[in-house]
Amino acid sequence: MPHEAHHATQILTALLIMFVAAKIAAELFERLNQPAVVGEILAGILIGPQVLNWVSPNELTSALAELGAVFLLFSVGLETVPHALIQASKVALPVAVGGVVLPFALGYGAMYALGYSQPQNLFMGAALVATSVGITARVLKRMNMLQTTSARLILSAAVIDDILGLLVLAIVSSMAKGRADWVHIGTTAAMAVGFTVFMATVGARVVKRAAPRLQTLRIGESFFIAGMAFCLLLAVVSERIGVAGIIGAFLAGMAFAEPSHNTGIHERTNALTEFLVPFFLVNIGLQLQLKTLSDPMTLGLCALITVLAIISKVLGCGGVLWRQGGRVVGQVGVGMVPRGEVGIIVAQVGLNAGILTPQLFAVAVFMAVATTLIAPPFVQRFFRGEPTEPTLEFPVAVEHVGSGEV
Amino acid sequence: MPHEAHHATQILTALLIMFVAAKIAAELFERLNQPAVVGEILAGILIGPQVLNWVSPNELTSALAELGAVFLLFSVGLETVPHALIQASKVALPVAVGGVVLPFALGYGAMYALGYSQPQNLFMGAALVATSVGITARVLKRMNMLQTTSARLILSAAVIDDILGLLVLAIVSSMAKGRADWVHIGTTAAMAVGFTVFMATVGARVVKRAAPRLQTLRIGESFFIAGMAFCLLLAVVSERIGVAGIIGAFLAGMAFAEPSHNTGIHERTNALTEFLVPFFLVNIGLQLQLKTLSDPMTLGLCALITVLAIISKVLGCGGVLWRQGGRVVGQVGVGMVPRGEVGIIVAQVGLNAGILTPQLFAVAVFMAVATTLIAPPFVQRFFRGEPTEPTLEFPVAVEHVGSGEV
Repeated sequence: MPHEAHHATQILTALLIMFVAAKIAAELFERLNQPAVVGEILAGILIGPQVLNWVSPNELTSALAELGAVFLLFSVGLETVPHALIQASKVALPVAVGGVVLPFALGYGAMYALGYSQPQNLFMGAALVATSVGITARVLKRMNMLQTTSARLILSAAVIDDILGLLVLAIVSSMAKGRADWVHIGTTAAMAVGFTVFMATVGARVVKRAAPRLQTLRIGESFFIAGMAFCLLLAVVSERIGVAGIIGAFLAGMAFAEPSHNTGIHERTNALTEFLVPFFLVNIGLQLQLKTLSDPMTLGLCALITVLAIISKVLGCGGVLWRQGGRVVGQVGVGMVPRGEVGIIVAQVGLNAGILTPQLFAVAVFMAVATTLIAPPFVQRFFRGEPTEPTLEFPVAVEHVGSGEV
Repeated sequence: MPHEAHHATQILTALLIMFVAAKIAAELFERLNQPAVVGEILAGILIGPQVLNWVSPNELTSALAELGAVFLLFSVGLETVPHALIQASKVALPVAVGGVVLPFALGYGAMYALGYSQPQNLFMGAALVATSVGITARVLKRMNMLQTTSARLILSAAVIDDILGLLVLAIVSSMAKGRADWVHIGTTAAMAVGFTVFMATVGARVVKRAAPRLQTLRIGESFFIAGMAFCLLLAVVSERIGVAGIIGAFLAGMAFAEPSHNTGIHERTNALTEFLVPFFLVNIGLQLQLKTLSDPMTLGLCALITVLAIISKVLGCGGVLWRQGGRVVGQVGVGMVPRGEVGIIVAQVGLNAGILTPQLFAVAVFMAVATTLIAPPFVQRFFRGEPTEPTLEFPVAVEHVGSGEV
């Protein structure tokens, strides 16, 4: 089969083009002070079937993309230390809940009013829930504002929103499968919450106790390898019980977060995501059907959903802080706007499940990209002149902020 | 398409099983003081279609296996510092050349005598050429013998044999395509040697000069990312000019070897190979057709090729040192016997190209595994009681010995 050898060449060529295009675009966007994640999606559009047609989406690219999403969520979980999260949630929980309820309600409501199907309404609502901690954190880090009270509120609330967003996704995926009776929804919600709490408490404790033993294994990098294996295991378990694999990957990361210091697992996971995540982001661009955006109806929907995405976070997150004055409302509200990679992953899950049409997938990705691009200048404006020291001391639910790629 | 979601679950499940089975087997074999690489191949046989039938080889597993082989060879190249190699070759070259000529001649000759086709004879000869530096190095490291003259000779000659083996593979692949006239062979050989020398000199110098600039890029891990991109690029170029992609990957690694200190590229590449190489090794096991080994003819061929593989390295490498006495002959000869992963990769290339039948693929893998298992106890015996200090000072062509997995 010389055919197979030829095939291997084609595969390697496609991977080379995807990887290099993504990294060049990321570097360009970083130099323009724009988020790398947006550049990598645009690179996918550029090399995809609709512009240069160098690479088409196929089974391998989507499998690598899936692996990229799984390890991306593992690395997000790895930065989420459960006990710090619990402490931070005492202050940040109202902000986070406001940033879940209002976006979901407005996204769901708009789709409902426009006559889309129930599963589609649910998925668009879910896509509006997550907050990308990375984008705002990077802007604030560059401004040396990470220690301000508002920044610490944003970081903690964004992480809680990621978790709540994944819970919403779990419930929505299960509802979208048709069994939308309240008993079933209640059971799924209880299971999702229970599993998350279990991983954050018992799971984290078990990993912490097992960590010294894991590090004495004969195989190299054993703690990292155990993390990878646990990530794949929980991803498979999640998929088998009917929720997205990324949810399990995130929980696996969270269970490994606490004993992860000085094990090198952050650097090693980072190396793996640096290689795999570009395939996830480029694949999003490959799948985007630009021609759907030439339809005025779709463009109108993009605009509507994006405006709702912005308003709902500003009011939902900033609103609960109205007593602390307009400046804090603006800082926290705008800081929570970017949806980034988690919103995109929700859209991808909806597309893969056959619920979001290519048109609605394009709308959700447009919303995630637009909120990510719009927010940073406003964040800068609202934080300019702020004293860099916090007025209120509380722990932050996230570590190693801004060390990742996205 | 809920079908696709289901498909994603199956893919993740297969990857989970392959990864966990490989790592458990590696740990078990390490504890038994046996090479992990053999354990991972056996894990592939166990979970494959012929025993438990949990995983079947498919397009995705073979693509991941290919990526694993490519990055494995990149990491081997990364340990091969060109200027040290050139210095070491003054002493180690005769040993290395002896370890290429005799194994190739005996492998080719035996196949020829048995009436196999010309391309098959060439590929079996090529599979006998490479020496796995990792196996012997680990044994010697554990015995604290890495500084002895014989050990330094083995390490340098093994690296040179890897390079010569890849050159032989390049020539053989090109000859096997049918154009076996001497002009064409000469051109291919000259190009392969020229490209290798070019990468070891000009390529390494360009990378060294570009290194400080690469590290100032805005994207994270930029030196590592440049290495990955260059590895994929040279792999594609190699495949396009008709030789195996792993050859380009090795040369890319060698070009990045010199300025790699303190860039963290070793650790990051290691993290990537820890994740990807298990798929390569398990895939070998998945592809092995055990029933061919129940055929007495095939078993006989396994025994013959394995015996020739051992004799040819002992005589070819040890023989050129006959003036230094039987002990040195034994040390170096036996130390060069393990074929390990590079021999297996040659077999895989031959199988993919449709040249090696499943039966001959099984023979080549059997030879690589058997030589890898047989050598270590003899290495221990020949080195026991040796003074740990070298009697002859010369640099070693390889760095970070034994840090890798295989």
